[in-house]
Formats: sequence, C-alpha cells, structure tokens
Amino acid sequence: MSYKAYFEEKRDEQLGELKQFLSIPSISALSEHKADVNRAAEWLADALKRAGLDNVEITPTNGHPIIYADHLHAPGKPTVLVYGHYDVQPVDPLHLWTTPPFEPDIRDGKLYARGATDDKGQIYLHVKAVEAILKQEGELPVNVKFCIEGEEEIASEHLPAYLMDNRAKLAADVVLISDTSLLEKGRPAICTGLRGLCSLQVDLYTANTDLHSGTYGGGVPNALHALVTLLSSLHDDTGRVTVDGFYDGVPELSPLMREEFSKLNVNEEELTQSLGLLELYGEEGYSFVERTGARPTLELNGIYGGFQGEGTKTVLPKEAHAKITCRLVGDQDPQAVLDSITMHLNAQLSRTPGATLQLTEGEKGRAFNADPSHPMLQLAADAYEAVYGTRALFTKDGGSIPIVASLAHELSAPVVMMGFGLPDENLHAPDEHFNLDNFDKGLLTIVEFLKRL
Amino acid sequence: MSYKAYFEEKRDEQLGELKQFLSIPSISALSEHKADVNRAAEWLADALKRAGLDNVEITPTNGHPIIYADHLHAPGKPTVLVYGHYDVQPVDPLHLWTTPPFEPDIRDGKLYARGATDDKGQIYLHVKAVEAILKQEGELPVNVKFCIEGEEEIASEHLPAYLMDNRAKLAADVVLISDTSLLEKGRPAICTGLRGLCSLQVDLYTANTDLHSGTYGGGVPNALHALVTLLSSLHDDTGRVTVDGFYDGVPELSPLMREEFSKLNVNEEELTQSLGLLELYGEEGYSFVERTGARPTLELNGIYGGFQGEGTKTVLPKEAHAKITCRLVGDQDPQAVLDSITMHLNAQLSRTPGATLQLTEGEKGRAFNADPSHPMLQLAADAYEAVYGTRALFTKDGGSIPIVASLAHELSAPVVMMGFGLPDENLHAPDEHFNLDNFDKGLLTIVEFLKRL
Repeated sequence: MSYKAYFEEKRDEQLGELKQFLSIPSISALSEHKADVNRAAEWLADALKRAGLDNVEITPTNGHPIIYADHLHAPGKPTVLVYGHYDVQPVDPLHLWTTPPFEPDIRDGKLYARGATDDKGQIYLHVKAVEAILKQEGELPVNVKFCIEGEEEIASEHLPAYLMDNRAKLAADVVLISDTSLLEKGRPAICTGLRGLCSLQVDLYTANTDLHSGTYGGGVPNALHALVTLLSSLHDDTGRVTVDGFYDGVPELSPLMREEFSKLNVNEEELTQSLGLLELYGEEGYSFVERTGARPTLELNGIYGGFQGEGTKTVLPKEAHAKITCRLVGDQDPQAVLDSITMHLNAQLSRTPGATLQLTEGEKGRAFNADPSHPMLQLAADAYEAVYGTRALFTKDGGSIPIVASLAHELSAPVVMMGFGLPDENLHAPDEHFNLDNFDKGLLTIVEFLKRL
Repeated sequence: MSYKAYFEEKRDEQLGELKQFLSIPSISALSEHKADVNRAAEWLADALKRAGLDNVEITPTNGHPIIYADHLHAPGKPTVLVYGHYDVQPVDPLHLWTTPPFEPDIRDGKLYARGATDDKGQIYLHVKAVEAILKQEGELPVNVKFCIEGEEEIASEHLPAYLMDNRAKLAADVVLISDTSLLEKGRPAICTGLRGLCSLQVDLYTANTDLHSGTYGGGVPNALHALVTLLSSLHDDTGRVTVDGFYDGVPELSPLMREEFSKLNVNEEELTQSLGLLELYGEEGYSFVERTGARPTLELNGIYGGFQGEGTKTVLPKEAHAKITCRLVGDQDPQAVLDSITMHLNAQLSRTPGATLQLTEGEKGRAFNADPSHPMLQLAADAYEAVYGTRALFTKDGGSIPIVASLAHELSAPVVMMGFGLPDENLHAPDEHFNLDNFDKGLLTIVEFLKRL
C-alpha cells in the first residue's frame, strides 16, 4: 500500500488519537497544571511505545519531565534525533476562543485546540511517520531517537543540562525539528536561522521618596531625566546601536544571502499599511527582511516611572525603570552583549549625577544558523518537493528558540527545521489551529525525508 | 484693653467657633461634598456679618461660590483686599489621621483638622482681627474688602473671570493673603515670589498594535525609542533646558537677590541626606535655593509605555507617553513656553521616523513676583517684628499658586503674602494642624498691619 493510501486509511483513527493528546491541558507555565503536564508526558510515551520505539523513558527534572525513545536497528545508517515539546502556552483570554481550547474541534479542514500547531500536532506527525514505516516495511531505513521536552514554552530551563549529561545517548547525524511554519499555504520553508535573545532590566533610583516639583524642582535629580538620558544613548539617529562591541560576531550579509532574502518577496508597502505604520524603520542599508532576519537589535520593551494617571501631578519621581531585550545573530555572545550594554550604561551615568543604576540580567540565548547547502538540508528540501510539488525556501526567522542553538552546539549536528505550521495559525493566541492539509502532507514529507537519508 | 488681653479673653470662644468652621468637610474636589462646600461658604458669610462687615454676598459660580464682604468707612485711607479660601483638600488616606479630619482636636498647643492651616484657620484670623478693631475702637483705620473663594484646591477655575468682571468693586491698594508659612517656628517670612506653572501631556504613536520583537524587531519604529529620543533632547548635560526661547523673560539674579537667598541658610548637606540623595543636582552656577526659588524648570513627572510587569515581554510597544510640567519665573509666559516646547519636540521628531506626536496642553499660570522694598511689604515686615520680635525675611517659594499672579495682575496692586502656617503642619496630608502660638500672634500681626497702613 502506498504511504498516501496508508495514511488515508488511518486518518480518522489518528486524528482521534491526536485529539486525546490535545485535550490534556499541559500548560507548563501554570503550576496548577503540573499533573496535566505529567499526564501529557505519559500519553506521549505510550504513543511512542505503541509506534514501536524502544527504550521509552520519562526522565523527571526539577521542572517538567523529558521523554526519550529510540529505534536503533539500522547499523551503518545515519541517526536522526527528533526534538519537540509536549507543553503548551496558557489560554488567556479564554472568552476569545470559538470552542474551548482543550476540547479539540475540526472546522473547515482545521483542527482547533491549544497546542494543535505548537507543538503537539507537529510532534505527533513524527511518531506516526515512524510507526507507518515500521508497519509498512517492518524496519526503519535509519536510526531514530526522540527527545521531547515539557518546558519549551517556559524557556527550556532543564533541557540544556540534560543535553550535556546525555551527549552520547543523544548523539545523532541530524537533529529534526517540526516547530516552525511554511512561508504560506503551499510554500514550504526550512528555517536556517533564528535570532538569539538576551534581556536586561534597568532600574534607576535618585531619592528615598517622590518629591514635590515646586519645592525641589530644579534642585534635585529627577530619575526620569536620568532614564531618558541613558536610554537615548543606546542608538544613533540612523537606527544603529551605539554600544561598543555590540556588533562583535555579527556577520556581514553576503550577496548570496541578500539574494535569498529578496526571494521572500515581502511587500514592504503592504506591510507598512497593515501595521498602521507611517513608515518602516531600522538600520540604514538593509531591507525589512534583512533587518529582522539577519541583523541584531536592542529594543526597549517597556518604560515606566512617576505619575501615569489623568491630568497633572507635580512630582519628581524617585525611581524609573525600563526593560531591554536584544535579538542576536551570527556569533554574538549573549553574555558579552549584556556586558557591553552594562559598561555603556554605567559610563553614561556620569552624564546624570545623582542617579544610582541597577541592572538585572535575564534570558541569554545564542542565535542559530544552519548552512542551506548542507546535504541534510538539501535532502529535506527534496522531501518537501516530493510531497508539496515545490522546493522549500531557506528562510531566516527574526524570532528566538534558544534551545535550537543549544541542540546544534551540544550535539554538534546539523539542525533541520522542517515546519508544517502556517504563520496565521494563532500560536500563543486564542483559536490556535493546525491546517489538516499540512497534517497529511507533513506525515508524507517526514516519511520521504527518513527514506532519503 | 490691649489687643493681647482682648484676644486672650476671647480665645476659647474663638477657637470653639473655628472648630465649627473646621468641622464642615468642604472638600472642593469631591462632588459628593458640594453641599458641605456651600455650608462652609454660608458659615463664613455669617461670621463676616457677625464681625461687622457690610455687603456680605455669596456669588454662585459654575463651581463653588465666591464670598465678598466689605467695610468702607475710612475715606481717604488705603483699601485692603483680603483673599483666602474656605475649601480644603481631600483627606485620604483616612487611616493615617490620629483624630478624624473633621472632628477638630487640640493637642500640645496645636489644632488638628483638615483646613486648620490651609486655609480656614488663616482666613479666620482676618475675620477676627477686623472684628477686634471694630469692637475695641468702633471703626477701622482702613477700608477692608474680603474675597474668599471655594475652589483654590482645584485650581481656582472660576475666580479669574470673577476678578475681571468685578475689577472696580475689588479695587484695592494692597492684597493681603495668609496662605503660606513662616520660615520656621519664630522666624516670620513674607513670600515675594511664586513660580508659575504650565503642563504638557506627550503621546507618541507608531503602529496600530503592539508588535512581536522577533518578527518585527529592527524593522519597524519603536514608540519608546522615539520617546526617549525626544525627551532626552530637552536638557543638556549641565541641567540647562535646551528649548529655544524657554528662558525668555527669566530675570538674572541680582547680587541683592543672591544675598537674600544666602540668608535662608539652607544646609545643603543635611538636605541631601534627608532626601536620600547622592547629591543635589541642577543648573550650573546656582545654589539649591536659587535653583528652586528663582530659576525655571522643565521636569518629567511621569513616563510610561509597553510592558511593566515582572520579567520579560518581547514586545515593540505601539505607543509611549510622558507628562511634563514647567515651573516659571519672572515674566515667562506659560503659553509661549508651551509653544516653544511644542516647536522643539516637533523639530526633534525628524530624528525618529515613523512616530506621530500628539501634545495636549494643561495648566498655564504665570509666576508671581513682589518687590520687597515696596512700602506695603515693609509695613508687613514691621507688623511681624512688632509681634514676633524679629523682622520677617523676604523669601521666594518654588511652588505655584497661580491665582496670586492673577490677583496682582487684575487688581494692579501689590500682594502681601503674610503667612502664619509652619512648613511642617501637614498641608494636604493626614494630621494637618495649626500651631496655636501662630494663631495668637497672627491675630495681633494682622491688627498691627491694618493699624500701621
């Protein structure tokens, strides 16, 4: 039987099973769902066993458990490590869901539920693709390992240590991840770049109490003045970051990369209109897709201090705050970037006498970069082409999945990001869904990929 | 009988009467107290009648009523217009009051109640001083008018129009106001300067929705970047305002004024410590009292935009906001200052493409300046000296009472700010009180002043 016929025959049964998986509210961020997260781990471990995998293990961590399974009966053949996650985002605001987030519902060829596309639906494709090959052919053409975590939505706190401790066990020739999207319906894409991320909380203090601007105004430091002085020094008027050393490790764009970017055909005028912008903005000399895909950023995400109510309050605030995150590219080191910003802000402090600066570091994740000419990525593009009838584009995503860089680094293996979602499937939002056309094609594409390795 | 003996004899009766006045919760800011504000107006009108004044009128406005009364039986003698207010501040937080704000209580020689020092207690002194002279001598040595409003705590919205409409009726040779403080216990002061005030709300917009910093970061405008760019341009690193035309009308400090300021003996080190500052700060070349008493300011009172919660949110905020107030001195015109800032910010906008700026003007009040060498102010200093045994200092206050400049301007008369409060009497705060030593001396000082005119 062709794989197409096989999956058609099994479709209802498999969708029913996926619905079971999706009905478990495995929200990793909320402690009241800890038991649900465990239940989802057990459900997935059972599914892996039923699919025919060996050595299925649920390893507890101080957070949520990590699932491992393998099928290593193809000596001399490559080994594929499938990574994914069985945890999901919270569901607020609940009233905006058309059907309840944990009561999966199929409408118009789409499966609606929290986790449908991110990432339960996509990880389930790999389980069923492996099962299909075993059922149809009795053996796998390659060695397969699964490593599925339950903390991706809360920054994968415990996975890096697990990777370090289990390097040999997880060793592979390629890491396969389905947690991204096609470019748009019918246009497959392989993500070859994700930006890194680091974050910094900025707290400035001047006095032990808010002061009356009549009595003290003009004679004492104002925390807000200090804040805007410091923050405005981080960029010049061309949009470039002025922090010394910030661009260390940022690769210049090659003509080839610029050509790849231009293939994406982003209509900048349409984008400007749809976002209600007066104009796009950013570093001089780069297009929008280059700025967001291949250039680092230093962005203010929040700023607050003093009176925020209606009207006027003649107060000199005693403190002021801001939140900064940077998106990183190439070989930028998150810690080095934070160190540079810290040095920069402390140096600027001399311009605002009387202010005390406190900086608190947050997330630190490196960028991920894959070489599109690597045979593994070319094979993945072949597999897409065989199923979708069109070759996958190699794209770079402006977002960050820090664990991808960790996987590439710890396992010294190429990472193939073979996504089957769509950008408008409401990830992290109400009415998350998964397009069943990509459910069907995803199963076939994975089978194609494994068989071509 | 000496006035001292007269007031001693009447003391209990007068304090009892003042307590009645203070027990009326005439909070002008709260509409549920509208009837109480009216009741306080009626109480005061009755008190003026009982004191022997003529033509007592309660003039309604669209807000709270204005009280007028006069005693014009000294032809050829100067006319004094007494200004004050019978409305009070709200009382929150109520739980911090030792005794309820509208149940006046005397402890340790202090009368505790909302309005005790600001301004019911002080306005009551004038009523009783006039009554005393009439009772003791059968006539007044001068002509006296009272103009007492019920909206001072809510920016005197309706008084300026009343002043304009009643210029002839209110005409006077001197305006006498008791709504300020001694420098400290036993050290009387006559305030010869109040700063003006103007305010501006700054709203910046970039997109029609908050944007994800991964997908869009580096490629679209960030409202917070625009905000800090604009706001940081308002001062240079020496603390001077960089807005063109801002200092128009600001008088240079004369050696004489500097000498007066230095007499105030402010201990800058003590002040720095008590406010928890690292250091004082402000325009180069001026002392703390000069900066706050005789120099204008442009201060940020609040700033807000984007994420303010715990941790990180990778968002590019679509809008950002700030609140600005300026304290004005000399002949600075509030509207001209706001126009200058508007022009400056709009010019800076070219540095932050993609941002839309919206500015909303608020309060506008000129500074008040009196000449300490004016005979009326010298007579007031003489009166203080006769009662307190020490000559009043001429001070400048960094705060703003816009109506004082209006009174001086509309009536073209010198204003004598003869205050009897103390700076630590908790104006606008729980446990407001009035020191009864200044109640006694205040009555005598006003009598002295009226008799010396």
